[in-house]
Amino acid sequence: MDKTEHPAVLLDITVRFAETDQMGVVHHSEYVIWFEAGRVALMAAAGMPYTEIAGAGYNFAVTDLQCRYRSAIRFGDAVQVITRLGSLRSRQIEFVYEIRNGESGAIYADGRTRHICVDNDGRMTRVPDWIAQRLAGKETGEA
Amino acid sequence: MDKTEHPAVLLDITVRFAETDQMGVVHHSEYVIWFEAGRVALMAAAGMPYTEIAGAGYNFAVTDLQCRYRSAIRFGDAVQVITRLGSLRSRQIEFVYEIRNGESGAIYADGRTRHICVDNDGRMTRVPDWIAQRLAGKETGEA
Amino acid sequence: MDKTEHPAVLLDITVRFAETDQMGVVHHSEYVIWFEAGRVALMAAAGMPYTEIAGAGYNFAVTDLQCRYRSAIRFGDAVQVITRLGSLRSRQIEFVYEIRNGESGAIYADGRTRHICVDNDGRMTRVPDWIAQRLAGKETGEA
Amino acid sequence: MDKTEHPAVLLDITVRFAETDQMGVVHHSEYVIWFEAGRVALMAAAGMPYTEIAGAGYNFAVTDLQCRYRSAIRFGDAVQVITRLGSLRSRQIEFVYEIRNGESGAIYADGRTRHICVDNDGRMTRVPDWIAQRLAGKETGEA
Repeated sequence: MDKTEHPAVLLDITVRFAETDQMGVVHHSEYVIWFEAGRVALMAAAGMPYTEIAGAGYNFAVTDLQCRYRSAIRFGDAVQVITRLGSLRSRQIEFVYEIRNGESGAIYADGRTRHICVDNDGRMTRVPDWIAQRLAGKETGEA
Repeated sequence: MDKTEHPAVLLDITVRFAETDQMGVVHHSEYVIWFEAGRVALMAAAGMPYTEIAGAGYNFAVTDLQCRYRSAIRFGDAVQVITRLGSLRSRQIEFVYEIRNGESGAIYADGRTRHICVDNDGRMTRVPDWIAQRLAGKETGEA
Repeated sequence: MDKTEHPAVLLDITVRFAETDQMGVVHHSEYVIWFEAGRVALMAAAGMPYTEIAGAGYNFAVTDLQCRYRSAIRFGDAVQVITRLGSLRSRQIEFVYEIRNGESGAIYADGRTRHICVDNDGRMTRVPDWIAQRLAGKETGEA
Repeated sequence: MDKTEHPAVLLDITVRFAETDQMGVVHHSEYVIWFEAGRVALMAAAGMPYTEIAGAGYNFAVTDLQCRYRSAIRFGDAVQVITRLGSLRSRQIEFVYEIRNGESGAIYADGRTRHICVDNDGRMTRVPDWIAQRLAGKETGEA
């Protein structure tokens, strides 16, 4: 495995009719929700379902979002979200995403989100060690 | 005022592009969100903004929803939600709604929702007196 | 099979974080979108994916929606939508739904939607024979 | 007016309960929909309501989205979206946004979106002159 690239988690998405708009394509705001579904899948794959993180009193608040839209997605398209850990610091987690056609592999969009860790009172905290370790374990394949 | 009909609260809605679907009309799930915006406006008009209700530890959980869709709504249409208290019991509140064109008055949809009062732990409670009184005050015009 | 009950199509739903609200539960408007996902799955199972129906110039516009909410759904819950054809007339299709916990079978909600068939210009039409037959075929098991 | 900054269009937003999530704040995907509402308001202020653009056979497809989230927004907060034209080229339009508290002026988020102009068949086209002129007129105050 390339040192600079973390392992990917794949999530299949069935486009919902409600996600389309009057241009006949999936509305661009839905990609943001799919990114979130992708990182929730990644966390589960890393052995720390988001319910466990939230249950321990932590949340990952989004501080930064970027998305490039390359080609439109239509109802009926086979959509796949590929999520990777981008980087991990004491106070910031970055995830990177690709949305592609699950059959042809054609890229619909890519993006990234950055997060801080906040406690139940909304105060910023360091990323707890157990979270960092599982994400990092996932990263090095030692998990 | 007719005895059987409670006063209405009007809320103007600007249709969002994201609310349309590939049929070129507003998706039917959005009406449910507009109903909610309507009853939030009614509560504010009754002197008890929802933040105050929630701040006091109560929420109105939806137990029943009904909506009849009569004609499609398009992006650019002038939409108005008319909300009224339907009925008020010790353990149930009903709101009724009309969605109409704010210019022509043509009816797009009508519906109702029923609610129970739950505390912060999600347990069902009686509707607190101060809430019932303000809703009832609104009802009789004595507020 | 009971004469009065049509075969069910099951659809597993992974609750999205974006679908929760500040009461800590899935917002009631999301159920409406899940119902839609359920009937799309039923149509696909009946051999007529919605893309084919729309491609042929037809859409099923919702005219009536009803939902009873029985217990709250939380992020992490295993959700399943069970969809059945309710009734089929020349100008109306009804679908019925249950949302339940996929593990315990506990019912979260049930409901129904009624639909008319509209063409690409939004005009109401009879339900085309080939659509009625596939739905009916699904109904009688002859498909 | 500063040469480098285009005039702003202000849009007041009433936070909807459905827009909150279980962290008790507005979900980050909603900002994307508010940005869109902001640019729709800007287009209307520039004398070309989006219905007119779409009616003429054009749509502005999003190619790039960026958002920085600075502080959480809660139900009941007075939200305002400030939208400006960022830049205008023959084949690209950029809008820039701030989301702030309408009372205190505190910044909740800022961002930008880039768009290409597509025709009804989804093909990329030059930005039509009449659209560019009205946006530019808005820009120079000559409109």
